[in-house]
Amino acid sequence: MKKLIICALMLAAGTAGYAQQALFGGASVKSPEINADKTVTFRFVAPKAVTVQVTGDFLPTQKVKMGNFEMDVPGKADLVEKNGVWEYTTPTPVAPEMYTYSFVVDGQNMTDPSNVYMNRDVATVSNLLYVDGNETIDLYKVQDVPHGTVSKIWYHSAAENKDRRLTVYTPAGYETSGKKYPVLYLLHGIGGDEEAWYTQGRSTQILDNLIAAGKATPMIVVMTNGNLAMEAAPGEGSEGLTVPSMGLPKTMEGSFEAAFPEIVNFVDKTFRTQANKKGRAIAGLSMGGFHSCNISREYPTMFNYVGLFSAALGVTDPSISPIYQNADEKLNVQFNAKNRPALYYIAIGDTDFLYKANTEYRAKLDQLGYPYTYLETDGGHIWRNWRKYLADFAPKIFK
Amino acid sequence: MKKLIICALMLAAGTAGYAQQALFGGASVKSPEINADKTVTFRFVAPKAVTVQVTGDFLPTQKVKMGNFEMDVPGKADLVEKNGVWEYTTPTPVAPEMYTYSFVVDGQNMTDPSNVYMNRDVATVSNLLYVDGNETIDLYKVQDVPHGTVSKIWYHSAAENKDRRLTVYTPAGYETSGKKYPVLYLLHGIGGDEEAWYTQGRSTQILDNLIAAGKATPMIVVMTNGNLAMEAAPGEGSEGLTVPSMGLPKTMEGSFEAAFPEIVNFVDKTFRTQANKKGRAIAGLSMGGFHSCNISREYPTMFNYVGLFSAALGVTDPSISPIYQNADEKLNVQFNAKNRPALYYIAIGDTDFLYKANTEYRAKLDQLGYPYTYLETDGGHIWRNWRKYLADFAPKIFK
Repeated sequence: MKKLIICALMLAAGTAGYAQQALFGGASVKSPEINADKTVTFRFVAPKAVTVQVTGDFLPTQKVKMGNFEMDVPGKADLVEKNGVWEYTTPTPVAPEMYTYSFVVDGQNMTDPSNVYMNRDVATVSNLLYVDGNETIDLYKVQDVPHGTVSKIWYHSAAENKDRRLTVYTPAGYETSGKKYPVLYLLHGIGGDEEAWYTQGRSTQILDNLIAAGKATPMIVVMTNGNLAMEAAPGEGSEGLTVPSMGLPKTMEGSFEAAFPEIVNFVDKTFRTQANKKGRAIAGLSMGGFHSCNISREYPTMFNYVGLFSAALGVTDPSISPIYQNADEKLNVQFNAKNRPALYYIAIGDTDFLYKANTEYRAKLDQLGYPYTYLETDGGHIWRNWRKYLADFAPKIFK
Repeated sequence: MKKLIICALMLAAGTAGYAQQALFGGASVKSPEINADKTVTFRFVAPKAVTVQVTGDFLPTQKVKMGNFEMDVPGKADLVEKNGVWEYTTPTPVAPEMYTYSFVVDGQNMTDPSNVYMNRDVATVSNLLYVDGNETIDLYKVQDVPHGTVSKIWYHSAAENKDRRLTVYTPAGYETSGKKYPVLYLLHGIGGDEEAWYTQGRSTQILDNLIAAGKATPMIVVMTNGNLAMEAAPGEGSEGLTVPSMGLPKTMEGSFEAAFPEIVNFVDKTFRTQANKKGRAIAGLSMGGFHSCNISREYPTMFNYVGLFSAALGVTDPSISPIYQNADEKLNVQFNAKNRPALYYIAIGDTDFLYKANTEYRAKLDQLGYPYTYLETDGGHIWRNWRKYLADFAPKIFK
């Protein structure tokens, strides 16, 4: 056994990462630490720092004015230094959820060197924090249930004349069942890409767990990249390691919606799908809700289930694209007796800056007598809500 | 258009990450910056810091004693502060390569807040740096060529009575070609998991680019997790977000090697494979080279191509497992006229701490008259070499 231990040390020492850690410091405290009473302690080693704060969505939000809108943004809390180790413990238990946080050291955002689990949101990287304790957070975790397969697969976009990447979830058993499956197309927001629902959205864990519990029909989930200017998520395309930005061209100009059928055709050719309206759903968050609203309206015979999660509604400008023209007539066609979707689902948080736009859109549907299902939650324009909406929406489709 | 821009801002402001960045600082300098003369400038904003250094494998290595061995570990360079921004520019051009680096701020390892591209190596996270300029680095990049599909797929391990995750690369065209493909099993080192070859190893880019250039035969690549105690990479299994460690149980005790055929059987059942010895290769780095050596010797009719990259040889202890017993007799069977692999490939760097063990193993093969192909490079036990070895090995198999 001795030989093996020496060998293990040898090999261990061989990795640059380990060497860096052993020789130049690195993680030396436990952070975050979830205490028995469900309070959470954050620690950061910085003997020379003057101020260290933690910010994240586990803290009460602050109201901040942004453009014409008042936004809820994560609060901050001060860490206190003792022997070079800065520490903060939440005054009360933290509710079960999946959170993101980072440190602010002398005014500079930094990730937690003691926590390797991170998430990128546009050009900002934060650390992940899971607090257990209820069925919601359990849905977001990898449980001991059959797991679907997650694939990064490229399709050729004739509209853009480039190959583009999709993230595709196929349910447990897909490879050998020989069956055909319905398909949920799941769209991200303006800061996201084909990885957003897979990482922050926990879509594959949510589906694994709902399907294993018999609450959702086994389905394929196709997570697209709505930024037509990109081949793939930052760093995953031939653009290389560029600094991620948002509000890219061709995201909200109608071209993504117009070209969407080529993705549906690729998926139907490549996977064992139920290639008809009954076998298709489309849902998205924020900009993805805007896209889902427009795509399902433009192609009224394509999707039988539509989900608008905190959707960016009421912003179409007919001068931009034919897709945005004659919206009311197209909506009328989408909701006529022949095309009417089996489920038209709208969900939003009561402090979302898009609440008013969604209220106006619902009033219009009410006035026209177009049926829809509505979920209102507390909170704003945040992933915590979008994960909840997916977990509520998925069991309602393909039934 | 105005409406759309306002809308984009609204949505942008909605993401917690963006809000954090806008309100609490975050990336505010360009780092790393690759200059026209191929020198590289690193910047870090820390007005209150006392010392800021950069460490990474782009710097000359330092010799450091670790246990019985003298290791090459990444050097350090001091940044100089001006108006709160610390800066370092390499004195000479940096050779084209894929590097990792991090900052050391007042003795603490920290990632670069201006660079969202990171890599986890065991419990240490570093930033990525690409310096272009030759065919080697081009192989590691996503080029405008047909891309294979990368899947995270779970198999049931009867030996461990748990589901475990694999990373599987299928070459461009696999989904629709109807063809059967040969399979390369690619194994990681002691700090790694089923994601190591996919992330630091750039295996899928290397294969995409070699296949597109006609240099490698289209093949499936199966990247296993050699830590039988784990279901999947840290954070991807039901263990949750635990702090990654290495030298786990059941990594070098023979049980991984013994159970390997259940992975091969799963792959042959699940993918369109050439399910015979001629259609199978196995290769690995460090501990993965040790595994590849043992597995190919234990199952002499399973693999026609064997690759030992900086392999941890000469450390088998017969008292641990039957797999490690009668090694010479088994090697004799592996190399008899009937079983002799078409390629037995050994590669190592001239400063690798395993160089001596590999030299002794080659002397033994020479003495016994067992043929092998040998590549010796400069440098030590580092990913830079392992990527090179894969790029050299892949074109030699399935011909």
